[in-house]
Amino acid sequence: MSAVVTHPAERQPLAEQPLRAGLPTPARPAPAALVIFGASGDLAQRKLLSSLFRLEAAGRLPDRFAIVGAGRTAFTDEEFREHARRAVQRFTRNGACDSRAWTAFASHLFYRRLDYDRTDDFRALGETLRELDRQFQLDDRFVFYLATPPDAYVRIAQQLRAAGLAADGGGVRRIVVEKPFGRDAASAAHLNEELLRCFPEREIYRIDHYLGKETVQNLLVFRFANGIFEPIWNRRYVDHVQITVAETLGIEHRAQYYETAGALRDMIQNHLLQLLCLTAMEPPGSLDPEAVRDEKTKVLQAIRPIPADEVERFAARGQYAPGYVEGRRVPGYREEPGVAPDSRVETFAAVKLPVHNWRWAGVPFYLRTGKRLPKPVSEIAIQFRAVPLALFDDDEAATEPNVLALRIQPNEGISLRIQAKVPGLELRIRPVNMEFRYGTAFGQDVPDAYERLLLDCLLGDPTLFARSDWIDLAWRILDPVLQWWESPASGAIETYEAGTWGPPSAQRLIATDGRRWRSL
Amino acid sequence: MSAVVTHPAERQPLAEQPLRAGLPTPARPAPAALVIFGASGDLAQRKLLSSLFRLEAAGRLPDRFAIVGAGRTAFTDEEFREHARRAVQRFTRNGACDSRAWTAFASHLFYRRLDYDRTDDFRALGETLRELDRQFQLDDRFVFYLATPPDAYVRIAQQLRAAGLAADGGGVRRIVVEKPFGRDAASAAHLNEELLRCFPEREIYRIDHYLGKETVQNLLVFRFANGIFEPIWNRRYVDHVQITVAETLGIEHRAQYYETAGALRDMIQNHLLQLLCLTAMEPPGSLDPEAVRDEKTKVLQAIRPIPADEVERFAARGQYAPGYVEGRRVPGYREEPGVAPDSRVETFAAVKLPVHNWRWAGVPFYLRTGKRLPKPVSEIAIQFRAVPLALFDDDEAATEPNVLALRIQPNEGISLRIQAKVPGLELRIRPVNMEFRYGTAFGQDVPDAYERLLLDCLLGDPTLFARSDWIDLAWRILDPVLQWWESPASGAIETYEAGTWGPPSAQRLIATDGRRWRSL
Repeated sequence: MSAVVTHPAERQPLAEQPLRAGLPTPARPAPAALVIFGASGDLAQRKLLSSLFRLEAAGRLPDRFAIVGAGRTAFTDEEFREHARRAVQRFTRNGACDSRAWTAFASHLFYRRLDYDRTDDFRALGETLRELDRQFQLDDRFVFYLATPPDAYVRIAQQLRAAGLAADGGGVRRIVVEKPFGRDAASAAHLNEELLRCFPEREIYRIDHYLGKETVQNLLVFRFANGIFEPIWNRRYVDHVQITVAETLGIEHRAQYYETAGALRDMIQNHLLQLLCLTAMEPPGSLDPEAVRDEKTKVLQAIRPIPADEVERFAARGQYAPGYVEGRRVPGYREEPGVAPDSRVETFAAVKLPVHNWRWAGVPFYLRTGKRLPKPVSEIAIQFRAVPLALFDDDEAATEPNVLALRIQPNEGISLRIQAKVPGLELRIRPVNMEFRYGTAFGQDVPDAYERLLLDCLLGDPTLFARSDWIDLAWRILDPVLQWWESPASGAIETYEAGTWGPPSAQRLIATDGRRWRSL
Repeated sequence: MSAVVTHPAERQPLAEQPLRAGLPTPARPAPAALVIFGASGDLAQRKLLSSLFRLEAAGRLPDRFAIVGAGRTAFTDEEFREHARRAVQRFTRNGACDSRAWTAFASHLFYRRLDYDRTDDFRALGETLRELDRQFQLDDRFVFYLATPPDAYVRIAQQLRAAGLAADGGGVRRIVVEKPFGRDAASAAHLNEELLRCFPEREIYRIDHYLGKETVQNLLVFRFANGIFEPIWNRRYVDHVQITVAETLGIEHRAQYYETAGALRDMIQNHLLQLLCLTAMEPPGSLDPEAVRDEKTKVLQAIRPIPADEVERFAARGQYAPGYVEGRRVPGYREEPGVAPDSRVETFAAVKLPVHNWRWAGVPFYLRTGKRLPKPVSEIAIQFRAVPLALFDDDEAATEPNVLALRIQPNEGISLRIQAKVPGLELRIRPVNMEFRYGTAFGQDVPDAYERLLLDCLLGDPTLFARSDWIDLAWRILDPVLQWWESPASGAIETYEAGTWGPPSAQRLIATDGRRWRSL
């Protein structure tokens, strides 16, 4: 499939692959130019260029397309192609890229240097696009991907408008922005307002790359293509839900960004709340993008902003101190280069969110994320209630309630913890797992989240992108936490030793309800 | 555990085995003598002696016990011990038996020749038992195991009574009978009546070795130690249930028995109906043996006898013709030695049983069993209903409903068929299995069904034995089928080629309801 790099002539038709037998031919996007702002930057290099190459190698890019790198770096077209080739070679799974496939792809790559402050540069970009439109017959369809620091978003959008590239003149003008989308409710609202002056809501694609992950997409399939989970997916059978996104990494070279962000902004406001919404949402009436996004928004509407005077009942934070992660000594956050020695930025955050609707009333959702935790694990765990009658309990052991764990990484898959009889002459029970793993079931050929998201952008399918009302609600829920944590009144930030599961307050957050975090 | 044969002094204490950490010491039966009638026969040799040896090696026999072989064969104690040693060596997993463990076990083995027609022989057996009682301090507890042809059951019971061995004189007098228990409702009632003249119901243990299998026992644990299955275990979510016990074997050397039995009597009346009851029963109020058996009886009470004038709507039969099984040419049933060339005995039977209660109204249970089928597979499959809204259906494929398969053999375990997203850039779904396997989860150390059942007999726990009311109901349900099949009016018996899944009528039985048998 997409990751197997072969020359187009050698490409196995999709319909002849065993897993695809009988499937209809996949949709292919209409012709378009994709402009990548920040084309020499990290994201373009690590993700965008290689994902585009793989899409092309898989026959999923339009028949007629152009990719235009844009940014402050002075590249010629040839230099950009060389830059892209190195990126593709380095970040494409299965190693090197076939030279014929590469040559075909590279002929669609172009570069235009520009200064985000100079409207003339954007006018020149417009000239280039019109020329490429003629050359490749792109039907006047331009997609602008902002792989830049967020402070450039508004400027670029305004320049595109000033250069006549934002108006929807019969063709397509679409803008794609990366997270973070604002840093609180007010700034996100402002950003949104500015973007909406240049592009209509339906053409603004706000990326949350978590939504492009296979397991996350599978969550919808798992819940709504199977009849047996929906009946127990509610307050009557679910005790609570835990969503964990744990990283072993520190902040790496991102101190500048991270010092202004923290775990709540970096992870919870977007990724973890998205996971919560997919877990908690009602079945949509159809898979229409707006039907799905409406249901996700409804979940956030059912979560009240955390009360400003009770933040510590609903949220916990911590910052990593030196310690050992995966056997290696690592420095504390405040010792990282670029971090203030008295930084109060949290590298761990946990929140408890009650969902006030008919399905979930009384079922808390516990979310936690952190850096320098013991294991890189992301999962959603549905913790079911105990059996109503404890037939098998004895003095020694109580029957463990069932747990359904949707593992996002590593070993993407689904695991159902059930009680089974221990083979032998006694009637003893022990928990065991029923497992399904993507890798085992389908092989390892899982596309990168960006492949999916880039393709959806080009196809014009916004299902997996965040809508402005969703983002607004997500910030409103968490704003009181951000404000309290930033106020001096909230005191010193708790620390946790690197390689442990966060600060004591995170344990208290859940223990106070008589529950505990899963051991992962 | 039980199958690992070690000298008592070397035996690892149960509590120190990892899977048993924290478990209480298992119950050990009170002292007793176990008399095996038919001790030189096939069942004693293949199952009983080796199971008893393994129980002893695992420290699960009483501190004080004696095993007395009895039958028409003229053995001395020493000859019987030698006979037993060979049986144990041949039929104990993990090969040979440790010589010290064997010597200890053999010192508890005795033999008494007797003629089932001579009361004096039974009086002499009584003398032996009283002597052993003194020698081993057995507290006047005698268990009689009838491993004989069924036509000897009543005679032996009567002789035991005549010899004063059946009365309950303060000690314990228990009788264990093997299947078949009767050959129709009338003969089973008669047999029961005769046994009840000699032993009270609570001391009559009717063996169905299927109930001793791990997966079968686990069915109770699976259903009632897990909170998430019970809510969907009913007519609202289950479309139908399929129970299959498929054998590749023919009748081997059992023509004499099989010509008078057939698949319905041999398998469905006992094993498959037991599986049905465990699947369909309501949660018992406790694990008290009578509470569990009450619930199983209630299931049969909810199944009406198959209407005599509609047998062919509810049942199908077939007889195997020559064919190929597992790559080997095999003869047809009528060509087997000892089978009448015009035999009408069925080697395949299928029935459809509606369960008329609140939980299962409208949900048919389809049962099938046969010899010379393509694979040796036994399983219970819960076929769930389709999703109420087919969000993911497209022109090419409809979403498959979920199936929960409880696999009894081979590869004992549980498999849940769910829909998952095929990794890749399209939203395509495919069924995959979530699996739990006993072997993988716990290792292969599963005790033989007879170990469990013999131990339960000695412990006085009748949970896994058939109660007379259950047996009576089971025969009543099927009697009309037996009568119709035996009447000339039902015509010639359909045949099926050996190595196929039974006759066309079996397909019609389920196809007429718009369903089909699972491909196994």
